[in-house]
Amino acid sequence: MTREELIHQIKAKRSFLCVGLDTDIRKIPPHLLDHDDPVFEFNRQIVEATSDLCVAYKPNIAFYESMGAAGWESLRKTWRILPEDCLSIADAKRGDIGNTSQMYAQAFFDEQRSGLGFDAITVAPYMGHDSVQPFLEFADKWTIVLALTSNTGSIDFQTITDTAGTSLFEQVIQKTNRWGNPSNLMYVVGATRGKSFEAVRKVAPEHFLLVPGVGAQGGSLSDVCRYGMNSDCGLLVNATRSIIYASSGTDFATRAREEALSLQQEMERELKAKGII
Amino acid sequence: MTREELIHQIKAKRSFLCVGLDTDIRKIPPHLLDHDDPVFEFNRQIVEATSDLCVAYKPNIAFYESMGAAGWESLRKTWRILPEDCLSIADAKRGDIGNTSQMYAQAFFDEQRSGLGFDAITVAPYMGHDSVQPFLEFADKWTIVLALTSNTGSIDFQTITDTAGTSLFEQVIQKTNRWGNPSNLMYVVGATRGKSFEAVRKVAPEHFLLVPGVGAQGGSLSDVCRYGMNSDCGLLVNATRSIIYASSGTDFATRAREEALSLQQEMERELKAKGII
Repeated sequence: MTREELIHQIKAKRSFLCVGLDTDIRKIPPHLLDHDDPVFEFNRQIVEATSDLCVAYKPNIAFYESMGAAGWESLRKTWRILPEDCLSIADAKRGDIGNTSQMYAQAFFDEQRSGLGFDAITVAPYMGHDSVQPFLEFADKWTIVLALTSNTGSIDFQTITDTAGTSLFEQVIQKTNRWGNPSNLMYVVGATRGKSFEAVRKVAPEHFLLVPGVGAQGGSLSDVCRYGMNSDCGLLVNATRSIIYASSGTDFATRAREEALSLQQEMERELKAKGII
Repeated sequence: MTREELIHQIKAKRSFLCVGLDTDIRKIPPHLLDHDDPVFEFNRQIVEATSDLCVAYKPNIAFYESMGAAGWESLRKTWRILPEDCLSIADAKRGDIGNTSQMYAQAFFDEQRSGLGFDAITVAPYMGHDSVQPFLEFADKWTIVLALTSNTGSIDFQTITDTAGTSLFEQVIQKTNRWGNPSNLMYVVGATRGKSFEAVRKVAPEHFLLVPGVGAQGGSLSDVCRYGMNSDCGLLVNATRSIIYASSGTDFATRAREEALSLQQEMERELKAKGII
């Protein structure tokens, strides 16, 4: 999905919601356990219930990988049913030396080889340019680099400043900026970061930001919009647990839709206030 | 495998060699392609030919993941045949927020859940303590944190210094040091780094270091030993391409053994020179 198509979907759906699919077989409603592939069945019903309200889905690869080859198969089936009008993001946080990152890129982008053809992948920047470049080389795909994450440990290294007073996350944005462009590169910036979005926007005014941390992690959508939204919207705000685990009963999909709808309505107000729709 | 057992194996085998299993179906000898699972068959013969000469095996997860569920199955079969007297390392470079890192830890450490029960995993530190902690919480397992890697991109972020003149990789070692100890924590330090091992040893005198970059990447084993070896050896030096792709013919396993033997002999000389054996 191109940048233009993504912006079009945001305006058409009046939403910049990304639904996280961190599907844990120990947390899904018990009545689904009779299915051949309960994880896939859960995802299928969540997607069916929410796809008109969001513009992206983000399976968290760890949750599938923890189930070995069977989990990988659930992931492949899930990827295949993600609708074309939604950006599909593999939340994988990969990154390694060049020839290995190339393999990771194939794992998530090259359907013929791996069975998966995601539109986007999250990537860890610690190993530098040759660890990020192989993802950027795939045409029509997105690389989403970790900048300032939503977790408490983000202050251990990401906010360390150099002698010029520039923090590591700002340096990550400044450098990776030269390796890609706003049409193939996004950044992860946690919703729990509030005013830090101003610092991010100084070095990445145009890029889309993938924003986890709204909902269960406590980030504020209105703060994210105040400090992070640009004239193209420039935000994909993710919610996971508050949507997919809204109920553990047979009404889980209906309740997931209600939660997604409430976020979509809040997003519609923000888009209107900014004059984007 | 405990620290004591690892040191015992190093002394018994007179080797601190780790063999990387970056097995690419497009690079293995063509006669293996008739097998049901050529990747596994290649690994099986490599392990059989080298297991008395090395103390660790390190499958590079990207190479398996790039083949989807089938690759994951080849990985599982490979893990199962890794001998008990060798440390099994999942070179995965994972790291995410706490509940997700927990899933990654299960994926590689919890055999009952995922089918894999590696002794060790490589982890990326960018997201801080809650991204590393879940791996350290597994009893009798090793977490191997990226410090100073062997690739050219390592200078993009890892060597940035703060206002006190401390580089990022030194800060990574200093902080993670407090989260684990020399019996459950190692560091990745690239063999291409020569004298940087002195800086690493200042902040991690006791820890084992996993050292990639000897062989195809051009690092010098004698420099690594001069600057990095401690009184317990404290090194696991990895070689991959120079061993597993020593020949692309039917003699690949014999040639792999010759390359491994040559490294083992050099290591034996280093261990003797240091008075460890």
